[in-house]
Amino acid sequence: MLKVLKFGGTSVGTLERIQNVANIIKKIKDEGHDVIAVVSAMSGETNKLLEYAANFSNNPEANEIDMLLSSGERVTSALLSIALNEQGYKATSMSGREAGIVTDNAHTKARIESIDTTNMKNALNDGKVIIVAGFQGVTEDSKRVSTLGRGGSDLTAVAIAGAIEADVCEIYTDVDGIYTTDPRIEPRAKKLDKISYDEMLELASLGAKVLQNRSVEMAKKLNVNLVSRSSFTPEVEGTLITKEENIMEKPVVSGIALDRNQVRVGMYGVIDRPGIASSIFTALADANINVDMIVQTRGLDGTTDLDFTIPRTDWEDCKKVMEKFKTETKNIDYNDTICKVSIVGVGMKSHTGVASKAFSALANENINIRIISTSEIKISMVVEEKYAELAVRALHDAYNLDK
Amino acid sequence: MLKVLKFGGTSVGTLERIQNVANIIKKIKDEGHDVIAVVSAMSGETNKLLEYAANFSNNPEANEIDMLLSSGERVTSALLSIALNEQGYKATSMSGREAGIVTDNAHTKARIESIDTTNMKNALNDGKVIIVAGFQGVTEDSKRVSTLGRGGSDLTAVAIAGAIEADVCEIYTDVDGIYTTDPRIEPRAKKLDKISYDEMLELASLGAKVLQNRSVEMAKKLNVNLVSRSSFTPEVEGTLITKEENIMEKPVVSGIALDRNQVRVGMYGVIDRPGIASSIFTALADANINVDMIVQTRGLDGTTDLDFTIPRTDWEDCKKVMEKFKTETKNIDYNDTICKVSIVGVGMKSHTGVASKAFSALANENINIRIISTSEIKISMVVEEKYAELAVRALHDAYNLDK
Repeated sequence: MLKVLKFGGTSVGTLERIQNVANIIKKIKDEGHDVIAVVSAMSGETNKLLEYAANFSNNPEANEIDMLLSSGERVTSALLSIALNEQGYKATSMSGREAGIVTDNAHTKARIESIDTTNMKNALNDGKVIIVAGFQGVTEDSKRVSTLGRGGSDLTAVAIAGAIEADVCEIYTDVDGIYTTDPRIEPRAKKLDKISYDEMLELASLGAKVLQNRSVEMAKKLNVNLVSRSSFTPEVEGTLITKEENIMEKPVVSGIALDRNQVRVGMYGVIDRPGIASSIFTALADANINVDMIVQTRGLDGTTDLDFTIPRTDWEDCKKVMEKFKTETKNIDYNDTICKVSIVGVGMKSHTGVASKAFSALANENINIRIISTSEIKISMVVEEKYAELAVRALHDAYNLDK
Repeated sequence: MLKVLKFGGTSVGTLERIQNVANIIKKIKDEGHDVIAVVSAMSGETNKLLEYAANFSNNPEANEIDMLLSSGERVTSALLSIALNEQGYKATSMSGREAGIVTDNAHTKARIESIDTTNMKNALNDGKVIIVAGFQGVTEDSKRVSTLGRGGSDLTAVAIAGAIEADVCEIYTDVDGIYTTDPRIEPRAKKLDKISYDEMLELASLGAKVLQNRSVEMAKKLNVNLVSRSSFTPEVEGTLITKEENIMEKPVVSGIALDRNQVRVGMYGVIDRPGIASSIFTALADANINVDMIVQTRGLDGTTDLDFTIPRTDWEDCKKVMEKFKTETKNIDYNDTICKVSIVGVGMKSHTGVASKAFSALANENINIRIISTSEIKISMVVEEKYAELAVRALHDAYNLDK
């Protein structure tokens, strides 16, 4: 098998940990696989360099930031290659440029445009382990070094796995996979063996520490089998994120996600003229505010009540937009003591009674549901924040996720 | 004027010092000059990375060391460019690759083969200050990053200055020029305004901290006007190292150099067969031992005495070679309590009595001269090490170098 592995900043955070990563790679090589490892900068390194830059400018040029930051991954890749060669495993580091990664010109948040795998294929044919400096490429136009922004090394790994048609792309972090829910809330949470791309995207909060949606989306698009596992317990099999067809037994519910970073916006007594809802949500979209759950109910006097949630970070922007609709609304209020719990599972599509089980589970605990929204594979409910953990545990229990 | 500036590790050792370098460049730009600045890694950075590598291997691959070490200069170049842009000076960093520097394939001690100045010329035409990451290029064959070894950033600066036909190449360190002798020995030592390449090469020990012979040799070959000056006192004019023709008033003696790292080898009663001296010095050359001063005198019984000096670092190797000649020699002894003082000056060529003035100056101080050797522009004398400082001061005084 050809395996693309990715080791994040924590996994390569010290010289001992880099040696540990070398040991993981050796074991995989000994099992007869070909290996391309993508590495991040040692943890803390990127922030240190950003602080250096901030010392000189509040607004440094993006292409200089890329020149600056790309050095961190190069250091890790060289060190890991040295460690492997020392143990008799032929290895070679590659910068993003050498790995053939070409991006657009959006420095510090570049998108990968293409990967020329010639160099990597030649090295693999020579029996070499390839250590790619993650997070970077070169721009198509000026051939300057570019970086891919947050989660960039994951993207590097997934994109390489797609371009070179690797059998699997393993993302190593300090967490050994995706759990049915946050184990800090429900200690009986179980690690999932497999999960579909779409479920993973909906369970984003459960993977927040280990996988970014941008990477999962790219894996889905490129049909890359993604594995989330830990470099600290490499003996533990992680969670495979793959396409739905690859999952034989589809659980009705795969996991329970919790999002505490939502604010509920209530617009009461909105004058019910045609297109009012449309103009409100268009204005919010124009301000780049990510509206999540929407409920419209008929209020008194032929007016309408609108309830929706937004990320807490968009709150101030939302207030500005709401100013425009003040005259058409009796009252607008905000509630940030709410949270969103979601039930996710591909099996929902073919099962009935999933939602009602959730509602009764919460009702049994006397938890009031403020807003409900459903999609093909997800049911989300807004409840008071003080019930967050209780709601998660009740739902985890209702669907027997600890079994 | 087009000026190439080079700032070493100490000059860019902290963020404050990088800001100081930005100020120096700004002032030169304000005076109407074009600037290409070559920078080293922040001091300590390269050693830190080498220690990291040593943690994994005693014999790391040279090309991986280059990948590792080249990151340090990239960081400095980006930071300096950010600092300049922030102050409204258009600047761009360039890696060795971007600066067009192509080397041979001898990783960690590569030699510059060619410089394609297109990229730099375009940036200069755009009115930009160019900040080149020193010490690095890319190999001709595999296009991998390579480093130039010790003093590599100086070489980068001199080679760029030669290739782009700069008017001057200023090497900034923490020393403000070349002195007539070591000021720690003779406080009355004076900074030289000008000195020829050949004198500088002979006075290597006086420039040891600021200029390496490899750079001076390249400057001579490429006809680059080299200036040694300090980034800590940029208002002080440094010392210009240039070709002899550019120096109108040629001093008889420019400076007094001292070398304490020599060992005197004495071979007494060498059987005087034809070719014996030749076979001894051939054997030493084959062992890469740098023999400096040689004196042959007739000993007793038709035998020969041979006296010569070698660098202290070659002592052990020399002893091994001497083993082979044991049977042809009555006695071989070594003396490391000696030193070599040298008088250097291009004016010597056209003046007589220079040597005799040196001999009487030392005689007046009762300093015995063990070996003498002379070249066109240098007179070297081996004396007992305890007289080192006294000999330097006596000679400095004899030639009125403090005037």
